[in-house]
Amino acid sequence: MNRIPVGVLGATGMVGQQYLSLLAGHPWFAVRFVAASARSAGKSYRDAVAGRWHLGKSAEESVYSITVEDANDVSRAQAAAAEGRCVFVFSALEMGKDETRRLEEAYAACGIPVISNASAHRWTADVPMLIAEVNPHHTDIIQTQRAARGWKNGFIVVKPNCSIQSYVTPLHALLKAGYDLKRVIVSTLQAVSGAGYPGVSSFDIVDNVVPYISGEEEKSEQEPLKILGDIAEGVFVNRVEPLISAHCNRVPVLNGHTACVSLEFGTVKPSLDEVKKVWSEFTSIPQALKLPSAPQHPIIVREEPDRPQARFDRDADKAMAVSVGRIRPCPVFDIRFVGLHHNTIRGAAGGGILNAELLKAQGYIAV
Amino acid sequence: MNRIPVGVLGATGMVGQQYLSLLAGHPWFAVRFVAASARSAGKSYRDAVAGRWHLGKSAEESVYSITVEDANDVSRAQAAAAEGRCVFVFSALEMGKDETRRLEEAYAACGIPVISNASAHRWTADVPMLIAEVNPHHTDIIQTQRAARGWKNGFIVVKPNCSIQSYVTPLHALLKAGYDLKRVIVSTLQAVSGAGYPGVSSFDIVDNVVPYISGEEEKSEQEPLKILGDIAEGVFVNRVEPLISAHCNRVPVLNGHTACVSLEFGTVKPSLDEVKKVWSEFTSIPQALKLPSAPQHPIIVREEPDRPQARFDRDADKAMAVSVGRIRPCPVFDIRFVGLHHNTIRGAAGGGILNAELLKAQGYIAV
Amino acid sequence: MNRIPVGVLGATGMVGQQYLSLLAGHPWFAVRFVAASARSAGKSYRDAVAGRWHLGKSAEESVYSITVEDANDVSRAQAAAAEGRCVFVFSALEMGKDETRRLEEAYAACGIPVISNASAHRWTADVPMLIAEVNPHHTDIIQTQRAARGWKNGFIVVKPNCSIQSYVTPLHALLKAGYDLKRVIVSTLQAVSGAGYPGVSSFDIVDNVVPYISGEEEKSEQEPLKILGDIAEGVFVNRVEPLISAHCNRVPVLNGHTACVSLEFGTVKPSLDEVKKVWSEFTSIPQALKLPSAPQHPIIVREEPDRPQARFDRDADKAMAVSVGRIRPCPVFDIRFVGLHHNTIRGAAGGGILNAELLKAQGYIAV
Amino acid sequence: MNRIPVGVLGATGMVGQQYLSLLAGHPWFAVRFVAASARSAGKSYRDAVAGRWHLGKSAEESVYSITVEDANDVSRAQAAAAEGRCVFVFSALEMGKDETRRLEEAYAACGIPVISNASAHRWTADVPMLIAEVNPHHTDIIQTQRAARGWKNGFIVVKPNCSIQSYVTPLHALLKAGYDLKRVIVSTLQAVSGAGYPGVSSFDIVDNVVPYISGEEEKSEQEPLKILGDIAEGVFVNRVEPLISAHCNRVPVLNGHTACVSLEFGTVKPSLDEVKKVWSEFTSIPQALKLPSAPQHPIIVREEPDRPQARFDRDADKAMAVSVGRIRPCPVFDIRFVGLHHNTIRGAAGGGILNAELLKAQGYIAV
Repeated sequence: MNRIPVGVLGATGMVGQQYLSLLAGHPWFAVRFVAASARSAGKSYRDAVAGRWHLGKSAEESVYSITVEDANDVSRAQAAAAEGRCVFVFSALEMGKDETRRLEEAYAACGIPVISNASAHRWTADVPMLIAEVNPHHTDIIQTQRAARGWKNGFIVVKPNCSIQSYVTPLHALLKAGYDLKRVIVSTLQAVSGAGYPGVSSFDIVDNVVPYISGEEEKSEQEPLKILGDIAEGVFVNRVEPLISAHCNRVPVLNGHTACVSLEFGTVKPSLDEVKKVWSEFTSIPQALKLPSAPQHPIIVREEPDRPQARFDRDADKAMAVSVGRIRPCPVFDIRFVGLHHNTIRGAAGGGILNAELLKAQGYIAV
Repeated sequence: MNRIPVGVLGATGMVGQQYLSLLAGHPWFAVRFVAASARSAGKSYRDAVAGRWHLGKSAEESVYSITVEDANDVSRAQAAAAEGRCVFVFSALEMGKDETRRLEEAYAACGIPVISNASAHRWTADVPMLIAEVNPHHTDIIQTQRAARGWKNGFIVVKPNCSIQSYVTPLHALLKAGYDLKRVIVSTLQAVSGAGYPGVSSFDIVDNVVPYISGEEEKSEQEPLKILGDIAEGVFVNRVEPLISAHCNRVPVLNGHTACVSLEFGTVKPSLDEVKKVWSEFTSIPQALKLPSAPQHPIIVREEPDRPQARFDRDADKAMAVSVGRIRPCPVFDIRFVGLHHNTIRGAAGGGILNAELLKAQGYIAV
Repeated sequence: MNRIPVGVLGATGMVGQQYLSLLAGHPWFAVRFVAASARSAGKSYRDAVAGRWHLGKSAEESVYSITVEDANDVSRAQAAAAEGRCVFVFSALEMGKDETRRLEEAYAACGIPVISNASAHRWTADVPMLIAEVNPHHTDIIQTQRAARGWKNGFIVVKPNCSIQSYVTPLHALLKAGYDLKRVIVSTLQAVSGAGYPGVSSFDIVDNVVPYISGEEEKSEQEPLKILGDIAEGVFVNRVEPLISAHCNRVPVLNGHTACVSLEFGTVKPSLDEVKKVWSEFTSIPQALKLPSAPQHPIIVREEPDRPQARFDRDADKAMAVSVGRIRPCPVFDIRFVGLHHNTIRGAAGGGILNAELLKAQGYIAV
Repeated sequence: MNRIPVGVLGATGMVGQQYLSLLAGHPWFAVRFVAASARSAGKSYRDAVAGRWHLGKSAEESVYSITVEDANDVSRAQAAAAEGRCVFVFSALEMGKDETRRLEEAYAACGIPVISNASAHRWTADVPMLIAEVNPHHTDIIQTQRAARGWKNGFIVVKPNCSIQSYVTPLHALLKAGYDLKRVIVSTLQAVSGAGYPGVSSFDIVDNVVPYISGEEEKSEQEPLKILGDIAEGVFVNRVEPLISAHCNRVPVLNGHTACVSLEFGTVKPSLDEVKKVWSEFTSIPQALKLPSAPQHPIIVREEPDRPQARFDRDADKAMAVSVGRIRPCPVFDIRFVGLHHNTIRGAAGGGILNAELLKAQGYIAV
């Protein structure tokens, strides 16, 4: 099978690098177009990232000789699309919210689907905020989106904040199994890579905990309600419950967000064994479709008393699985557990790639 | 004023060293007796800790030439007491629970008060678990203790686990101000020094979070109920509320336990400003008595969005104050905050010394 | 091809676990025999390592059901050998030097080759200290060893200390290219995993450097002289030069030893370009034999100004390559460079496995 | 005694904060003037550093209400000088080299002595690069400087790079004791605070070593030769020996630069005991003058096998002493040792303050 040529916007930044690293050797997609800020435009990708590559794993060899385009100039992507080098783009743009919003819309308007990591469109009324295993049907809104905006092939989908993925998939699995959720109190212990690069100063975090991440608690409390919600008559209907209270902390860990969760069910309260069963057995559309980046088990249940741990569990199943453990009764609510996921893979670029695979399988990406 | 000669049991261990370091130059107490395991007995303290001193600050110079006694041989302390070298002992014993219990009782039985850091007697019915600012009146039980056991000068008091001190004093201040507390969910991010020495292997904690500390959650949930309770007719009456749910994590921080707390009040719910006022203005007996180790403000309220932080706030007011911040509404309960204290000073040896100062001021220590 | 059944002594320790992790799926060797201390004997390997597994990657599934034998009881391995379950053993014994020496000899004496990670036999006159790319011909001594000791199939080979591998292969490549070496001053920055488990206390190394590792500098200075030496008339003739001065430091890094090296040549002094060429082009017997664990390039030359770095380069080529960089003139000697290797793979278990592959290819292991 | 009113240029940056923190309660100097970039000008110091204070210890209370001036506008300092609020300035400017050079000269030209932390003037022919215990007589050049430039009260002195202080004072003490030094090979393990703020990204240094710091090796090799040199006929005569080769590494340590040093003497080679004696007994002008920031012993000799260590020794004697240890023979040169100092105190702001105290005592600062 010929791989689908794709583009990456913001290709020189931390998330852009993560995309290129994960897409190296991808069975469906091949990067043929890279765009970044005007400063990098005109350089080969090799030159543009010289001295700025922050990952262990490289991009695909062929990417390094591609000339970086100016991401602000949509006509460059249009030209690439016309030449068959850019069927859709991953957006890892790192600019202001309004700018990002406008620019992503400009790409979509000229027929290029945008699968975005940026937060700009998360609360746009007709844009789905997608976790492939949780709300794959939210892509239904794309029809509405295209119709309202007069886009033919283009569309925009986004992924949620990286802080929520350690608990949203477990919560969804319980809802899907028929258990109502009333209240959630969660404390996150988040890795420094979540802040991008250079991100957190070493002077701030060595031998320290920073109990605050700007804007993170709001996102951690509100985004799940859209993701866990429904679409009715072409409009998102967000959930009202569970109420979520999030305490977000930065800790001296490179990768892997840990979440300590206390959970209150509605009237029907599953046993701990039932909870474990629900999570162990949970699978969803990406698994059924055998998408290349889908983990075999979206949720891995650990039985050891002291797992999951960031360093040992973040890479589970291509770093795409959420690991949960310490499932035990809560003296205040009903159950407690610890969730963990790899924030820059499952929670960022890997999640974006899985979204693209889902959209391809659902037929939204025309080749 | 002549300083009171005191002893330290378990003087060569991590907590024992912390005691000796903090007691260097203490205005009331002078260490004249040190005891440890049989292995160290007979050596000078200098030789006993050679190559094993883990702190930046040293013991008082005179301590280094004291001969270490065998802590298991109570007659050594009795002899020292007879010679006026040991009016009471700080117990930093690191042995089994039953052994510790018996040994501490043996010291008390022969007239030597024991101010203990060990956990062995925390739930003994007639032993107070003391935070000097929170339950100074619990020392009333000493009368009962002495009477029941036939001890004349001896007694035992203990301090609670280091994990709870970031939130128990704030909770107490609210109770004292008349606000009822129903439920608390807390996640702690605890420093490696809390595990003693060698404690946590570097291989387990560099670039990692360990979401489990054996026995810690139970202590964090139950000990506050004894401390916040009352004495009625010579018997402790523990509180029943607030219900507490604790998630305890080990993080790569040297000193300073952080606690993220969500709190539900009873029917009367103070405003955030009222909560800040209660905490800022809280003082207690140790402050009234101007005890040498008492912090001027037991609770320091920080207004910055990102404080308290372990590295910057653990040393506040001789490392004896609890710093709180991020006082904000909780979408699930009523308020949320972050508390922080120095676990090996406020939460261990410093807390023990403050307890001794209180007991001296209360007249329990006869000189 | 049927895989050769092998054993691991000390299989439950840190190095033993590393062996089992690396041997999972090995094309030539399959672990069929595991031995450890009497305490673990009789348990399944799964039970023996429950709660003690320190690595991200597991052992091969079949290993977990093997019953652990007492490593002190050589007859167990003999029985296993007789049943075709143990053609040779990897020794990861962690006991006293004399005990290890005797025990490894006992295994060899009953016909079981011992490929050892222990330091006990490093200076034994007829035991080769092997880095497969540097002194593969030192296995010639096995004939002498067998003859002198009356061993038929058994033999002992060891690998050197993990601290030296960042510079010994580069030094060897220069010698092989005809450049004489007079003096070397090296400072190592060593990872905590080099101390085993639990090894370095987190309290000693977070926010710290420990400029001392017991015995390490002596090994770092002397072992290269045996490895870089020759065999003449059945006897090792150690090199006398280069003189080596080593400063060994422990730093807060999980894996990967860094070495800063200043080097003085003899009269013929290669240019920097020549040095880079020698290193880039260096290959040896393991590469020629295409041994499964051999890195394609034993030495990887990095041109970036700030590489090699532990986190980014330790895993290069299955974590079996030495990465060098910052090759530049030395104002005091001739050249300077930074070398780096993965201490528990290239420098320990991975090196041992490569040694076994070499010995198999050389015909010393009879199947 | 009335304290001398002083100013701090670059007062809001990391080094500026360090100055203000160390000057809090200083017996001789009181900060009455603060200047920073145009962005901060006009704000109170409190507002200017809100959310940007990186230290545990605060500035003196009175500083917070001072209005920050624009450091580029020398007339502001002139006005302050005229009003008796600024007798001299500490320069912690963080701008380009040429700009810094011109600006520091402008301050000096209008009569305000500049005691600088910036590197701009380190190699200016008539500017002394001062370590108060090593080359206090280099201030003699101020006469030449003033004469040549037509300055009356103003002058400029600078301090050297923070990387060199762990070994330059020990080297100087040996030279002063009459031992000639031929060659030095040194590897430094430098703290992240040396890079300023935000400085090193946490993503670059957690679980890592970066074996490169831009420009640092050149400074580490060349600056000592000026400092250890002499003045002849009003001109600096730099030393030619010892030749120095420096390997500079960044390690995950907050404060405290460690140096591993191999040292070759000239023909007269002191014994290890003689070296220890020279270092233990070394004192200099700042000690004789009892300057407030002078350590009692500029060099502290540690006899433990594993000291000095960054976390335990960086704060020795107000963080102003250099600690040395592991003094042992070198197989390649003559002796080896490990040196350590606090890079942002002894090596930066504390060193600058000591320089100012020296200059005051020497009469260069007119009050």
